[in-house]
Amino acid sequence: MPRVMLLGQGYAASVFAWGLERIKKGLVEPWGVPLARVDFGVPIESVEVVASVDVDAGKVGRTLYEVVRGYGLEPEPELKDVVVHPGLRLRSTPSFLKTAALDDRLPLEDAVARFEELLDDARPDVVIDVTTTARAPPLHSWGEVEEGAARGALPHPQMYAYLVLKRHGVAHVNFQPAHVACSPAFVERASEVGSLVLGDDGATGATPLTADIVEHLAERGRRVLSIAQFNIGGNTDFLSLTEPDRNLAKEETKSGFLADILGYEPPHYIRPTGYLEPLGDKKFVAMHIQWISFGGFVDELIVNMRINDSPALAGYMVDLARLAYAALRAGLRGTLPEVNSFYMKRPGPLGLKRKSKILAYQELLQFVEALKRGEPAVATLRAAGR
Amino acid sequence: MPRVMLLGQGYAASVFAWGLERIKKGLVEPWGVPLARVDFGVPIESVEVVASVDVDAGKVGRTLYEVVRGYGLEPEPELKDVVVHPGLRLRSTPSFLKTAALDDRLPLEDAVARFEELLDDARPDVVIDVTTTARAPPLHSWGEVEEGAARGALPHPQMYAYLVLKRHGVAHVNFQPAHVACSPAFVERASEVGSLVLGDDGATGATPLTADIVEHLAERGRRVLSIAQFNIGGNTDFLSLTEPDRNLAKEETKSGFLADILGYEPPHYIRPTGYLEPLGDKKFVAMHIQWISFGGFVDELIVNMRINDSPALAGYMVDLARLAYAALRAGLRGTLPEVNSFYMKRPGPLGLKRKSKILAYQELLQFVEALKRGEPAVATLRAAGR
Amino acid sequence: MPRVMLLGQGYAASVFAWGLERIKKGLVEPWGVPLARVDFGVPIESVEVVASVDVDAGKVGRTLYEVVRGYGLEPEPELKDVVVHPGLRLRSTPSFLKTAALDDRLPLEDAVARFEELLDDARPDVVIDVTTTARAPPLHSWGEVEEGAARGALPHPQMYAYLVLKRHGVAHVNFQPAHVACSPAFVERASEVGSLVLGDDGATGATPLTADIVEHLAERGRRVLSIAQFNIGGNTDFLSLTEPDRNLAKEETKSGFLADILGYEPPHYIRPTGYLEPLGDKKFVAMHIQWISFGGFVDELIVNMRINDSPALAGYMVDLARLAYAALRAGLRGTLPEVNSFYMKRPGPLGLKRKSKILAYQELLQFVEALKRGEPAVATLRAAGR
Amino acid sequence: MPRVMLLGQGYAASVFAWGLERIKKGLVEPWGVPLARVDFGVPIESVEVVASVDVDAGKVGRTLYEVVRGYGLEPEPELKDVVVHPGLRLRSTPSFLKTAALDDRLPLEDAVARFEELLDDARPDVVIDVTTTARAPPLHSWGEVEEGAARGALPHPQMYAYLVLKRHGVAHVNFQPAHVACSPAFVERASEVGSLVLGDDGATGATPLTADIVEHLAERGRRVLSIAQFNIGGNTDFLSLTEPDRNLAKEETKSGFLADILGYEPPHYIRPTGYLEPLGDKKFVAMHIQWISFGGFVDELIVNMRINDSPALAGYMVDLARLAYAALRAGLRGTLPEVNSFYMKRPGPLGLKRKSKILAYQELLQFVEALKRGEPAVATLRAAGR
Repeated sequence: MPRVMLLGQGYAASVFAWGLERIKKGLVEPWGVPLARVDFGVPIESVEVVASVDVDAGKVGRTLYEVVRGYGLEPEPELKDVVVHPGLRLRSTPSFLKTAALDDRLPLEDAVARFEELLDDARPDVVIDVTTTARAPPLHSWGEVEEGAARGALPHPQMYAYLVLKRHGVAHVNFQPAHVACSPAFVERASEVGSLVLGDDGATGATPLTADIVEHLAERGRRVLSIAQFNIGGNTDFLSLTEPDRNLAKEETKSGFLADILGYEPPHYIRPTGYLEPLGDKKFVAMHIQWISFGGFVDELIVNMRINDSPALAGYMVDLARLAYAALRAGLRGTLPEVNSFYMKRPGPLGLKRKSKILAYQELLQFVEALKRGEPAVATLRAAGR
Repeated sequence: MPRVMLLGQGYAASVFAWGLERIKKGLVEPWGVPLARVDFGVPIESVEVVASVDVDAGKVGRTLYEVVRGYGLEPEPELKDVVVHPGLRLRSTPSFLKTAALDDRLPLEDAVARFEELLDDARPDVVIDVTTTARAPPLHSWGEVEEGAARGALPHPQMYAYLVLKRHGVAHVNFQPAHVACSPAFVERASEVGSLVLGDDGATGATPLTADIVEHLAERGRRVLSIAQFNIGGNTDFLSLTEPDRNLAKEETKSGFLADILGYEPPHYIRPTGYLEPLGDKKFVAMHIQWISFGGFVDELIVNMRINDSPALAGYMVDLARLAYAALRAGLRGTLPEVNSFYMKRPGPLGLKRKSKILAYQELLQFVEALKRGEPAVATLRAAGR
Repeated sequence: MPRVMLLGQGYAASVFAWGLERIKKGLVEPWGVPLARVDFGVPIESVEVVASVDVDAGKVGRTLYEVVRGYGLEPEPELKDVVVHPGLRLRSTPSFLKTAALDDRLPLEDAVARFEELLDDARPDVVIDVTTTARAPPLHSWGEVEEGAARGALPHPQMYAYLVLKRHGVAHVNFQPAHVACSPAFVERASEVGSLVLGDDGATGATPLTADIVEHLAERGRRVLSIAQFNIGGNTDFLSLTEPDRNLAKEETKSGFLADILGYEPPHYIRPTGYLEPLGDKKFVAMHIQWISFGGFVDELIVNMRINDSPALAGYMVDLARLAYAALRAGLRGTLPEVNSFYMKRPGPLGLKRKSKILAYQELLQFVEALKRGEPAVATLRAAGR
Repeated sequence: MPRVMLLGQGYAASVFAWGLERIKKGLVEPWGVPLARVDFGVPIESVEVVASVDVDAGKVGRTLYEVVRGYGLEPEPELKDVVVHPGLRLRSTPSFLKTAALDDRLPLEDAVARFEELLDDARPDVVIDVTTTARAPPLHSWGEVEEGAARGALPHPQMYAYLVLKRHGVAHVNFQPAHVACSPAFVERASEVGSLVLGDDGATGATPLTADIVEHLAERGRRVLSIAQFNIGGNTDFLSLTEPDRNLAKEETKSGFLADILGYEPPHYIRPTGYLEPLGDKKFVAMHIQWISFGGFVDELIVNMRINDSPALAGYMVDLARLAYAALRAGLRGTLPEVNSFYMKRPGPLGLKRKSKILAYQELLQFVEALKRGEPAVATLRAAGR
């Protein structure tokens, strides 16, 4: 039974916890969970949230029941059992947040010690990072990681990954744009200590659809002339992306697939564009693609979407908890490219060639089959990152 | 070198002939030809148009050079060598066309004989049917075919297929919604006489994109609530689809993939909607899809396109001429599901399960690899339709 | 205080009754009521529903409270006071409806007599027809009306108008595409008996927006090349429009404004396109317009909408009840072109030139000012239909 | 006959000069010229380009014929008569431009003197500024203007306005976001010297359409919840707007109308979003609006456009040349709110309440009628800015 610890009790983590209980009780179908109907020995119902961490003063100390209600959802009573613990704000938490973090009132060293106690008490199998976007370049050696951690220089997603990977046999899943599964230091460390690090940046929203549309065009020999893609929303994630540094971190994971799929990089403008509060969590996406067809004729495609951002991610969280747990039990360690390629925008390990999501899904299915047949040797080889 | 005979010298066939010459001279890149960069022994430059047939009084007797110019394109002088021959109008040619068909002035039997003479003179390897849409249900036995032909009861696409398949070692490619590759009678006959019949209904425009978007949604476990798709254009094809019977024929090939990909058939409204002359060949498509995401949240996707209909088909015609020729030479007979699945809306043989186009493309690549390696036995088995 | 009788207790009439009570109690702002903030002596709160009529077996005999609940809305208890009376099905009610109409069980003459009793009992000031679309060409003389009524040949909207206009000092508002305010017979009769007849076809949805967009283009000297507009929805209205005759009736009111605003009629395809149940009352609209700009350059505009059809109409119903009542009290009779021009798709009287809605609104404001100042002479002149 | 001097020989000015000659020769209809069919004594054919100014090293010294050809248009030979003179780059010209400006090689004072010589030689009636966007806050006194000019501190659009208004009886038309007609100093000065200053920021593209859509919603009592509007293009204007300061200047003129039309300012995100070279001058616009309808239901509207930016402006330039000339001859001075309100995004004078464009057009027509009837007194009063 996978014990899950949530880092960042925002809307995504809240929809996840809320929806999971509702699925367990049969109140709702598990729509939006990609592998809901694939049996690999870890049913959705077996997933359990054992701990939750946040730095928001409005959440710390509350139960998940209260937090979920605060988002306007009707929670099951089971959510009263989990209380939000204070986390680490470090320097990377956005300034617009009123925090009640461990390092607000304690020296960093003591704050970190308190967080480690929590990890030891909660004994999670899978830790899922859905905190606010932070820019965090790749780290190449464990020494570099330790040194950054000691100085308090690591952004929070890398600090959390560091603390989790100090332990053994745990999976750390990073759903945000920071380089975690794309940091060689973390993947190598995970290999050494029998752990897994999965990520980076959950591929929900317009980016995975764009990858599949681009594959569709490429297979017809069409020459993409330009791609414009705008995203605007009203949740905390979009608010945080109005800070240029975070926006840049996001932009990079949103367009990196183009050259890999097409074989050339067409002119493009793809990025989170702005914050507009009344849109809430249901963001608006507009996309324009034009290409050359046979004989030089130019075609155009416009896509507009209204997408519930956090529920899409919550559905992925369910699968990642299940897959990471199954992989740990099968003895896999390091990272899982087949898993990352489907669920993530910038799949680790660093430098992994990106592919369209429909093709990635076929490899995911093969991976799950191999897992079921118990082919650890091959899979570990794969997991090592080749 | 594949010798190609065109049935229906409309805009698609004209863009094909025009573009092919321009590619041969290096005046334009072969964009829009799916396998342009895949080498299987039949280069684009080797394809040659040896004959053309139409029933339009404005085209019969003209050279391809003149016909292409009439569409506002600047043709290469090589197109002066091919003259449009009169074809068979039968009862299925739309009434708005002023015809100069063989059966306008000759009894059916004599008209058919004249057409057979043309076939014998032209000695095509590949005959490509891009005539106007006609409704034509599946035919199950060669006897049924012969009887219908004798009575003049066959719609033109089936009559043409019949006359081609009376010969040996020829490939007949049907790009329209009539049941040809989805008529067991034609596939069986082709198997017997060392020929191929490929089709039905070229998968250009919004339908193949919809198939891939639906696959994308299915892989994420999203529940599709409804799909609306409108198509409107100003070319002869759209004009002909204002006749209810033809429209019905088209509607069926446009939505048949839903249940195969999703496992259920969501409520949908997918059909060619109307004729609007100023849109010309560049049709306008609007599509709305809504689905249930994790936790019951509803997302929406809107797609709008301006697509040059005929050039998209022309690019496919290039590949079909090449693939059919290569397959004939490799001894394949009957039909080629791997080819049909990618290029066609209702891939033959009858009852073949439809799949998303991105997955079909992978199987097409494998088929082409097998063809290159010369694995005729396996391929013939496949080609038989299983 | 305007006493309102509703003909057709469908979703529009139900949202109207439900919303009106909620506005009266201050539970909701009067958004969607065009003149909500314009004071002309008849406040929204003064409008009262005194009777309701339908032919649907599932509604007849129920209270408005029950009917509104059946639509998933939470009604105020006041709606328990109004019971749905059976109406007249005649030959024009759609066949898919299971009816409990007066003429289901009574000879037409008796059925009509029963309906007239209801009118006499309810003593409405304003009767609002929001029944299902019926095709009904203009009627030119009262004799023609009487003769058609006697034979049972009138479609239901004209039969209802006839029965209302047999009385004196009542306003009949026709929100559907039948020719009522565009029947000279009804307007003349209303003039004679001190009544009003307003209509036809409520201008909600995409049509009024299109009128304003077209005005916008015309004012810039742009030449409209083509307009395509698709509408699809899942309410009873869309279901009824799948019957070709009703669809035709609708199509005509949806595009008649083009030549009046532009001075020429551009090629267009504008019509209700289909029925798709899961869209419910929130229809999907897609529109494409292209035009010539300075120097011959071609621009394109695409509009997509999700519009709650019935609430938009319900907001208009509030104003029409108020305006009709105020006009009756001011002694106006016949019809009110200034009112019709803004609220209706084919504003009466027959042959009235259509204009953009933004301009119509300015004239509506002037009309309301004149009404307030009590300038009946001028207004009556106007009302006569010129 | 209006003698026109162009400041900024970019694509807009080039399409203007090219199209004007083609209209004169009857080669093209005057589509895109709002008042093309309104006769007020200054026919389109009478407009003449007598001088042109730019700072782009690739244009200075070339004839309009050469510049127009450089944009891929086929110019009439008459354009050989006008040579592009060097202008003033000052500090506000974008850094990505390679310049050949007067102040590149001369001290500012001498450069200015040379420019004034040009003005004196060319004797324009109307000077039209279509230079690159510059941020330029309002100037309140002529002293302030003179002092800024002497120091070289004025951005180029204000410097040009200053130099034009040192003369008498000239109209200066500012099509860019700088405060010129919205600078009290310039309007007052124009009043004193018998000149006119018109502007600011030509209302082409999505902004005027948005104003009319918002008016449309307001008139129906709908409550606008949010507006998102993205603009992306590939012309020099979009390139220049990637500089944050220019972008800010533009953003302000694009959304200022909301509160004036609605009576409240809804949350919005409206701004030029990015530069994407392959889109060229035909920008892509995406807009999302949501609002509350009757009863609290929420509707949504999405608009997508492909708009040729410069031709739209060129059509306005034709009218402004005609209107400014007619107004000068009628003795009007200062500014013309009725003209500005229709053609401009931030119509002068400063603080003028903005209205929807359809309403502004009605006032424009009335103004033109008054002009024709020769009612200078009233018009001058209006022109003074009230």
